[in-house]
Amino acid sequence: MLYLVGLGIWDEKDISIKGVEVCKKAKDVYMELYTSEWHGSIKAIEGMINKKIKLVARAELEDKMDTIIRKSKDNDIAILVPGDPLVATTHTALYLECMKRGIKVRVINSSSIYTAICRCGLQIYKFGRTVSIPKPAKNFSPLSFYDSILTNRINNMHTLMLLDPEMNVKDALKLLLDAERHKKGGIFSEETFIIVCSRLGSDDEKILYGRIKDVMKQHIRNPAALILPAALHFMEEECLNMIKINKTKSKK
Amino acid sequence: MLYLVGLGIWDEKDISIKGVEVCKKAKDVYMELYTSEWHGSIKAIEGMINKKIKLVARAELEDKMDTIIRKSKDNDIAILVPGDPLVATTHTALYLECMKRGIKVRVINSSSIYTAICRCGLQIYKFGRTVSIPKPAKNFSPLSFYDSILTNRINNMHTLMLLDPEMNVKDALKLLLDAERHKKGGIFSEETFIIVCSRLGSDDEKILYGRIKDVMKQHIRNPAALILPAALHFMEEECLNMIKINKTKSKK
Repeated sequence: MLYLVGLGIWDEKDISIKGVEVCKKAKDVYMELYTSEWHGSIKAIEGMINKKIKLVARAELEDKMDTIIRKSKDNDIAILVPGDPLVATTHTALYLECMKRGIKVRVINSSSIYTAICRCGLQIYKFGRTVSIPKPAKNFSPLSFYDSILTNRINNMHTLMLLDPEMNVKDALKLLLDAERHKKGGIFSEETFIIVCSRLGSDDEKILYGRIKDVMKQHIRNPAALILPAALHFMEEECLNMIKINKTKSKK
Repeated sequence: MLYLVGLGIWDEKDISIKGVEVCKKAKDVYMELYTSEWHGSIKAIEGMINKKIKLVARAELEDKMDTIIRKSKDNDIAILVPGDPLVATTHTALYLECMKRGIKVRVINSSSIYTAICRCGLQIYKFGRTVSIPKPAKNFSPLSFYDSILTNRINNMHTLMLLDPEMNVKDALKLLLDAERHKKGGIFSEETFIIVCSRLGSDDEKILYGRIKDVMKQHIRNPAALILPAALHFMEEECLNMIKINKTKSKK
């Protein structure tokens, strides 16, 4: 059996008791850290599960994955992955490959950014589809995320925007304004109110709400995600007002 | 400080290591089990955290909550809640109340049905807003969920449908067909393909994909959630084909 074990949103203590137990019993335990950032200690996890962890690097993905799948036919093997396992498409591909080959596969869930963002006070069932904001590269600056945000906006759904890990909030906000200039859907301006969720699950997590121009002046540490809120329920509004920056200024 | 600690999706072993540590250090630990079902053992959690848990019943909610909030001003108090804490609006209200009174509040995340449903192979960022299917009562049978499903459908987003805990899958499917007869949006018929996620996170979890008429003939245990998929990516389709019921029949 192959176990896909979630590491959760921040460090080594976000794994579940079930996840630790599965790894303790498994013959081999692998860990992959390329699908998203993880801020824990591998040594600490090794201490909890009483065995060495084999790290799988991005480059050796295909070879290693094939070996892992074949091993799982006759042994219990665990792979530790950041967040909740099947949120990353890479793991869904692995999950599917196991099913195709008739190898049993089980998911041990953990916390994910998708629900952790509820800290800002927005109600989760009012979110539309999530978008990824890619870091622009030379001759490659896709703006397709804008269309999904517009669809959510038209249908009065909040939008969670996940940033490329190499991108900071200021650059992401510039890109949103830039996309607006090209697409002209009337979503973003410097006056648009936006939510920033920074380092959720860590001791220094920070959530801010403010106009894009004001958020740009803040020092915000990575990793961070942005949310464009739709029309607000009064309780959502009360929550956002508690984390609003430049309160006096915006009351004018 | 008040800690809102997630219990995760199924039993006592879905809590995180961080959650257990917070409860160990807390002066008092409460647990509420009325916002959604939980299948764990309170005694087992008490064993992990070395203290008694005070259960908060739905009826005593307001009184108890006020006591808990006031206690949290000078002590570390933890409340254990099913799933990931702020997914339930009740806990957001408590979170907000703490912020208003200047009491520090921290969320310890855990697994949630919102991401656990990725087991079916659908990609999470293609989901639109989630709907709740209420159990119809005499003179009360709101069909507003239908409009949200229609909006998702028009915009090519998958829809997660959470069922009232007292409702079984067969009754929920009947209600969808009934809503179709009233609303006539052309979403549901007996031939519509649907996904059923039953008892996710348990040892007997089950995921099925099939036409409504075929799903209705299956024995499916509660709790369960339904998903109406939008247009499928080829990898999503491959996954769904692996869990399809009546494979031969639908190939005709």
